[in-house]
Amino acid sequence: MNQYVVGVDVGGTTVKCGIFAINGVLIDNWEVPTRKEEEGKYILPDVADSIKAHMAEKKLELDDIEGIGIGVPGPVQPDGYVHVCVNLGWHGHWPAKEMRELMGGNIRCAAGNDANVAALGEMWQGGGKGHDNLLMVTLGTGVGGGLIIDGHIIPGVHGAGAEIGHIHVRDGEPESCNCGGHGCLEQVASATGIVREAKRTLAASEEPSSMRDFGDALTAKDVCDCAKAGDALAVKSLGTSLRYLALVMAHVSMITDPELFVIGGGVSKAGQYLVDVTRKYYEEFTPLLNKKADITLATLGNDAGIYGSARLVLGNE
Amino acid sequence: MNQYVVGVDVGGTTVKCGIFAINGVLIDNWEVPTRKEEEGKYILPDVADSIKAHMAEKKLELDDIEGIGIGVPGPVQPDGYVHVCVNLGWHGHWPAKEMRELMGGNIRCAAGNDANVAALGEMWQGGGKGHDNLLMVTLGTGVGGGLIIDGHIIPGVHGAGAEIGHIHVRDGEPESCNCGGHGCLEQVASATGIVREAKRTLAASEEPSSMRDFGDALTAKDVCDCAKAGDALAVKSLGTSLRYLALVMAHVSMITDPELFVIGGGVSKAGQYLVDVTRKYYEEFTPLLNKKADITLATLGNDAGIYGSARLVLGNE
Repeated sequence: MNQYVVGVDVGGTTVKCGIFAINGVLIDNWEVPTRKEEEGKYILPDVADSIKAHMAEKKLELDDIEGIGIGVPGPVQPDGYVHVCVNLGWHGHWPAKEMRELMGGNIRCAAGNDANVAALGEMWQGGGKGHDNLLMVTLGTGVGGGLIIDGHIIPGVHGAGAEIGHIHVRDGEPESCNCGGHGCLEQVASATGIVREAKRTLAASEEPSSMRDFGDALTAKDVCDCAKAGDALAVKSLGTSLRYLALVMAHVSMITDPELFVIGGGVSKAGQYLVDVTRKYYEEFTPLLNKKADITLATLGNDAGIYGSARLVLGNE
Repeated sequence: MNQYVVGVDVGGTTVKCGIFAINGVLIDNWEVPTRKEEEGKYILPDVADSIKAHMAEKKLELDDIEGIGIGVPGPVQPDGYVHVCVNLGWHGHWPAKEMRELMGGNIRCAAGNDANVAALGEMWQGGGKGHDNLLMVTLGTGVGGGLIIDGHIIPGVHGAGAEIGHIHVRDGEPESCNCGGHGCLEQVASATGIVREAKRTLAASEEPSSMRDFGDALTAKDVCDCAKAGDALAVKSLGTSLRYLALVMAHVSMITDPELFVIGGGVSKAGQYLVDVTRKYYEEFTPLLNKKADITLATLGNDAGIYGSARLVLGNE
C-alpha cells in the first residue's frame, strides 16, 4: 500500500481537503471555494487542480497516493451515483469516477455521504478510535447521523441509513418538520429544536429564568449554559430535548446494538454535561442491556469529513 | 461445495432438524426431544446421533454435507460462545465446536441466535426470498426480531441486535415489561399485548363489541377476527397495537433502511389485514422516504429456524 491518502469534504460553501499518512496523521490541509455556478460543474476540477498543486508542493507523486475519498452533502447510491445534490447544484454525477479521470485515470477513488463519512472519520482518528461499531450523532442546525457496523458505513437501501433526525419521538407536535413529519427528533434536539423547546418552556411558565434575559435571540448555547449554571427551566427544557435524544439512542441499541455513541456538531460543545444528562436517560430506556454502550464526544470537529473520506479509500484493511 | 446442508433449531421442548439440498430444497426433516436434564448436556449428542441416523437412511456420507448450522434460543457471542441459555439449562457451551467434534471433527458448523437465524431462513427461502436487507418481526408471546444487512445477520455487540420488542414506544405505561422497562413494543404488539390493549379498550368504553363475548378468554386471534369483521372497538385497539409496531418499523427505516419487513409469528396469521393496517401507519411515520420498504408476511412458519440455520453454514456464497 502507498503511504498517503487524500480526503475531500465537499460542502456548500467550501471544499475541505487533506493529505494524510495512511496511519491517520494529517500532513497537509486546505480549503477550496465551492463554485456552484453551472450546476456545480467546476467543483471537482477545482479540487483536482488543488490536490495536484498540494501534492507537488509536498513532492508527492501519484504513486505515493493510495487514493482519494470524497464526502458529498447528499445521498450517494451504493454504485457511487449521485442523483441530485441540492447544496452543490449537482444533477447526475459520479464523483469518484470523475475524480479518478481528473487525476489521470490511475488512482483509486471513493465517495460517500458526508454524515456517514464523518462517522467513519471519528471512528478512525476521533472520539470513536478503537471501535468499529458505533453511531455518530451530529447535533447542529439539524440532527444527522452515521452508522458504522464492523467498520463499514451502513448507507441504507434508499440512502436513509442513520437518518435519526427524522425518527418520530413525540405525538401531538403541531409544527411540521422539514421532512413533512410532525414530532421528529430534529424538531426537539437540534440547535433549533433546543431553542424552540426552551421558548415553549418559558412561555408555559411564570417562573424566573436567566434564559429570559436573552429574549428572542436565545441560542442553544445559551440554553446549555443556563442549564449548566443550574437554571431550573433550562435544566427542564434541555432535559426534555436530551431525553428524546437518549430515547433514539436506546432505539439504536435495540436495533443494531453498537458499542459506542459519538456526539458531535455545534451543540456537542456543551461537553460532558450533555453526555451525562443523555446517559442518565439512555440508561433508563435500556433496562434490557446489562452492558450498555458508551457515550462520548466527537473530537475532530469540522475535520471529521476529511478524515472519514480519506478512511473511506482505505476500506477495511 | 458439497450438495447438502443440515439445519438444527434447538427449542426448549423439541429440536427441529432438516437436511437441505444447498439450493434450499428441504429433503428430510424430523424432531428430537430436548433433554434438559443435567444442564442440557445430552441435547447436542442426541441431535448428532439423529443426524447420523438420518444421513445413513438417506445414504449420505459426511463428504456430502457442507455443514451443520445450529439455532439457539439465547444470545450467541460472535466467537460462537453461549454463556447461558436458560431455556436449555446451558451454561458455557460452544455449540458449533461441540457439534463438529460430535460429528467426527471434520465438518463445518456454525451457531446463531434463533430469532436472527429465522430471519435468515425467511431471507433464503421464505417471505424475504430475493432480498438481502430486511428485518424480520416475530409477533408471538413476545415480539422478536432478526436484522439482515447485505445478507449478514446483525447480532449486535452485546447480543441485543433486533431486540425490537424492547423499544420504548409509550410513556406512562403503568405495567412493567419482562425487561424491567415500561412501555415496550412487546407490551402492546405481542399476542399478549394485543389482548391487553383490547381489554383496556373494552374497559374504557360502554360501546357494544363482539370482543365482549369472549370474556376473559379473549385471544389475539379473536381481536384480529373481530377487527377484520369491522367491530369498532377491535379496529381501534388493534389499530393502536399496529400503530406502535409501524412506529418501530419506521425507526428501523431511519436507522438501517432495509428494503423489506417480513412479519411472522402466531399473530401474523391475521394475514393481509395486518399488513395493510401496519403499512398505513408506517407510511405516515416515514414522510422522508420517497421509496418505502415493502411489508410482507413470513411463509416458513415454524420451519424458518431450520432453513436459517442451514443457510448460516453457507455463508455469503
